[in-house]
Amino acid sequence: MITFGGLEAGGTKFVCAVGSGPDDLRAQTRLPTTTPDQTIAQAIEFFGTQSRTHPLSAIGIASFGPLDPDPASHSFGHITTTPKQGWANTDLAGAFRRALNVPVGFDTDVNGAALAEHRWGAAQNLHTFIYLTIGTGLGGGGMVNGQLMHGLLHPEMGHVRIPHDLSRDPFPGNCPFHGDCLEGLAAGPAIKARWGQPAESLPPDHSAWDLQAHYLGLGLVNFICTLSPQRIILGGGVMDQPTLVPKIRRNVLTLLNNYLQVPAILHDIDHYIVPPALGNRAGVLGAIALAEQAAARETTTNR
Amino acid sequence: MITFGGLEAGGTKFVCAVGSGPDDLRAQTRLPTTTPDQTIAQAIEFFGTQSRTHPLSAIGIASFGPLDPDPASHSFGHITTTPKQGWANTDLAGAFRRALNVPVGFDTDVNGAALAEHRWGAAQNLHTFIYLTIGTGLGGGGMVNGQLMHGLLHPEMGHVRIPHDLSRDPFPGNCPFHGDCLEGLAAGPAIKARWGQPAESLPPDHSAWDLQAHYLGLGLVNFICTLSPQRIILGGGVMDQPTLVPKIRRNVLTLLNNYLQVPAILHDIDHYIVPPALGNRAGVLGAIALAEQAAARETTTNR
Repeated sequence: MITFGGLEAGGTKFVCAVGSGPDDLRAQTRLPTTTPDQTIAQAIEFFGTQSRTHPLSAIGIASFGPLDPDPASHSFGHITTTPKQGWANTDLAGAFRRALNVPVGFDTDVNGAALAEHRWGAAQNLHTFIYLTIGTGLGGGGMVNGQLMHGLLHPEMGHVRIPHDLSRDPFPGNCPFHGDCLEGLAAGPAIKARWGQPAESLPPDHSAWDLQAHYLGLGLVNFICTLSPQRIILGGGVMDQPTLVPKIRRNVLTLLNNYLQVPAILHDIDHYIVPPALGNRAGVLGAIALAEQAAARETTTNR
Repeated sequence: MITFGGLEAGGTKFVCAVGSGPDDLRAQTRLPTTTPDQTIAQAIEFFGTQSRTHPLSAIGIASFGPLDPDPASHSFGHITTTPKQGWANTDLAGAFRRALNVPVGFDTDVNGAALAEHRWGAAQNLHTFIYLTIGTGLGGGGMVNGQLMHGLLHPEMGHVRIPHDLSRDPFPGNCPFHGDCLEGLAAGPAIKARWGQPAESLPPDHSAWDLQAHYLGLGLVNFICTLSPQRIILGGGVMDQPTLVPKIRRNVLTLLNNYLQVPAILHDIDHYIVPPALGNRAGVLGAIALAEQAAARETTTNR
């Protein structure tokens, strides 16, 4: 069996695994994200050790950003302008490629998760969809016409601006760049700052969830109108509250107000806005899927 | 020389032309959009007459919508749920294919214009960009990864929700579905309703243009964060006011607040947000480009 290495590179931890998919995920390890030198060396050591028993065909990295996912660019594989101390301009993909001498796939954490959901989860057989994560940050990725979303850089969906009624919610938003963009109003830290307690400790009947569903509904409507996705997958820690998804679905229908006459939305919203089928493994499986893609590209190139 | 037919199907007029590109655009005609039977028959007559001297290799239709652009769908080529009297569920592409017996390309007016700008205009060599038109309505199309944007349906970018400060602008918005969505605040009819005069009669120093640039800046920031386009092209009658584009560029920079550290935006915004290189011919040239694409597809299929 072909074995890939997958690295979910997050701002607080690096999750490393080897395997080939959801039914074959072996030897995971979690490393705290400290300095690039230390954390990368530890991850390389893990994959190096693993590759002695299971030679790795490729490694995939699904990383926090902003980053450069363009293979034609001179800074491909780098984390670029992150405010995270010490990590700006880190050549993440290059470090693994040089140390382990295998093809390296590299993309955003959310594009990785989207790819995993496309390969094995809730977006199979779709060509255009988005994957949003609502947790410490709020980010989105996905596919359009069957390819992962890239452009000038990569999507930064958390930073869209939405209506914010200050008389209903006087919290000014906590995005350091934009104040009350979607992330500044609806990511985990905003919930904690507004209510004085973290999302996971808020009871299901707290009014926080209505407000949260209001903002996420507005965000989703904007993504729907901009991209016309065939499905929207909502992951991340904040989405662990089970009352949230049904409220968001209702808000999206109310806000669209029958403008889009498509059965998938009008009559089947429960299958249109969904949780990740891969749960919280979408991240590391995304890294495995990026490795698989990188190996396939290498094979095509060498043919 | 290969000749294509192009039909820009608008809600008030049908513009028909034959030719092969911006330097070869012949025999245009404009027909008022009345009933489907009458207008389609007149357009077919025009193309039929033209094809006697220049046989048409294909016809492209860039149409008002909503419409079905999916060749795999049973309602492909139809205008679907338009509120325009008599036009809902009109098989536009089918009528031309049956009458003229040539391949027919079919897409939204804005995707057509985007394709024309990609082929001959301001989006050459780009793979991910958007084309917005701000006129009687407000709509957007474009490409992601080198393919026209489709999904569940097609983008409806005019209907994104943006912040609306009622103390600055008490106009409630005039979208019949959403009130103060972007189209409800910033399309031509909204300008006319708010100020009591049409956009084209407002002087360049009128405060209407600051407000207009404010809303369009917010809309563009949302599209940038969602799609990461390499360029944004702004067409449509409202954009004929020359003070508007520079104001929009400034607002986009202010709103992004250095979050996206990309030179194309930070240092070259004048080439990032641009008018259509094809001017108001982008529409009918878009139809020609769709015909060219349809002919190429037919050739590939028959190989």
